Amino acid sequence: MSEPRTVTDPADPRLADYTGLTDVELRRRREPAEGLFIAEGEKVIRRALAAGFRMRSMLLTPKWLGVMEDVIAEADAPVHVVEPALAEQVTGYHVHRGALASMERQPLPEAAELLADARRVAVLEGLIDHTNLGAIFRSAAALGMDAVLLSPDCADPLYRRAVKTSMGAVFSVPYARLDPWPSALDAVRAAGFRLLALTPSGAEDLAVAAPHLLPKAALMLGAEGDGLTRRALDAADQRVRIPMAHGVDSLNVGAAAAVAFYAVNSA
Amino acid sequence: MSEPRTVTDPADPRLADYTGLTDVELRRRREPAEGLFIAEGEKVIRRALAAGFRMRSMLLTPKWLGVMEDVIAEADAPVHVVEPALAEQVTGYHVHRGALASMERQPLPEAAELLADARRVAVLEGLIDHTNLGAIFRSAAALGMDAVLLSPDCADPLYRRAVKTSMGAVFSVPYARLDPWPSALDAVRAAGFRLLALTPSGAEDLAVAAPHLLPKAALMLGAEGDGLTRRALDAADQRVRIPMAHGVDSLNVGAAAAVAFYAVNSA
Repeated sequence: MSEPRTVTDPADPRLADYTGLTDVELRRRREPAEGLFIAEGEKVIRRALAAGFRMRSMLLTPKWLGVMEDVIAEADAPVHVVEPALAEQVTGYHVHRGALASMERQPLPEAAELLADARRVAVLEGLIDHTNLGAIFRSAAALGMDAVLLSPDCADPLYRRAVKTSMGAVFSVPYARLDPWPSALDAVRAAGFRLLALTPSGAEDLAVAAPHLLPKAALMLGAEGDGLTRRALDAADQRVRIPMAHGVDSLNVGAAAAVAFYAVNSA
Repeated sequence: MSEPRTVTDPADPRLADYTGLTDVELRRRREPAEGLFIAEGEKVIRRALAAGFRMRSMLLTPKWLGVMEDVIAEADAPVHVVEPALAEQVTGYHVHRGALASMERQPLPEAAELLADARRVAVLEGLIDHTNLGAIFRSAAALGMDAVLLSPDCADPLYRRAVKTSMGAVFSVPYARLDPWPSALDAVRAAGFRLLALTPSGAEDLAVAAPHLLPKAALMLGAEGDGLTRRALDAADQRVRIPMAHGVDSLNVGAAAAVAFYAVNSA
């Protein structure tokens, strides 16, 4: 049980984990270096704890003390209570869901470790948009993907906005980095996976490729706009397309991912 | 051919169509009342024209004059040239894609008209988020839906952000309102459609329901958060679910729509 304590000074060092949350560049450097990430909102905080992440501290506006009572009772980390105006001053934005937690990162597993137990994995290249990344994790979790593998230039799934958009799914689907890129894809193939690149110019229809019949399938998706790079396409075993109508040239990557994750898991 | 003219006064009445674009409430009232909508960016403007919408006027920053040369040559509507700072002053935001067009709305078709020629329709209830709505139109177009039917409380597909997120797909997939709601769903059924409600609590798996075998299918989707209302669920012929893994309780409505649109159209 942690005793909530009111903090009134925005420069109080106990609030350091929460400063400048809207400065993406700053947070992108700081969070991995300091081994923390920010969980925002009651649901996401509960899901992070349920997934086994250790809490460093919590920042609550007074009206959230009641809602989070049981979390506080279980916590051994400090709980800082701040007025909404102070929360905004420290974080840089109006914290609608007046509950933030600073959580401790865990070491990422190796890709090989995840591949040993998986049958369906998503491989993402160059996804730098946190909203798209979070949405893809949410779909990956919901639609039964076993793991997500990220190219080195993908954004951080534990960045606040990605965590929030994923509704905490970044805690339930294990993920790892594939480095060096794209040669580390060879290890995916060596683990028994067939590498299917999703691309509007793919030679074969997704339905014809029948990915649900593959014992082990890796679905490769590229960033919004450019799609998979030439090097990634060359490293794939097969290029498949989702058929398009009405003269549309591409799907949003989040929609393409949902379709592909569904297709690879449906009987 | 329209002769581009420089405008320097933010209060110039020729710029009236473009004032206060970030004020959602204001624009939501004004645009339908004045019979206009705003297309933003080169691609979207071209797609609106290709779809047969008439241009009322165009607002360009100087560096877009070259890119839009052919559009200007074809236009009989006035072309206003403004500096980026003035564009920001008038619209209320920094216009990244320095090209805006005010387009004339066309009367919406009746649902019955669309149903006469369609085999696959999406029925959306309570979608008030313009980004979700635009994303669903983009998927509906790409994945081969013939029409979209909207409950009376759905947002306006021609609102700027919806148009942009849809990448102009709101111009290529015809849509209509279903009013009164939900009793107008009877007309959908009378037109030969089976009404499938997508809901996490659905009794049957989407794959088992095999919607692609139906001669005519209407896929009902509810708003993010609450999903379809009890009344809408009661009006459906069948409730189907997309199976969920990892303890996830729901998909984002855009992801669910993409999966359902794919499933109803894949062989």
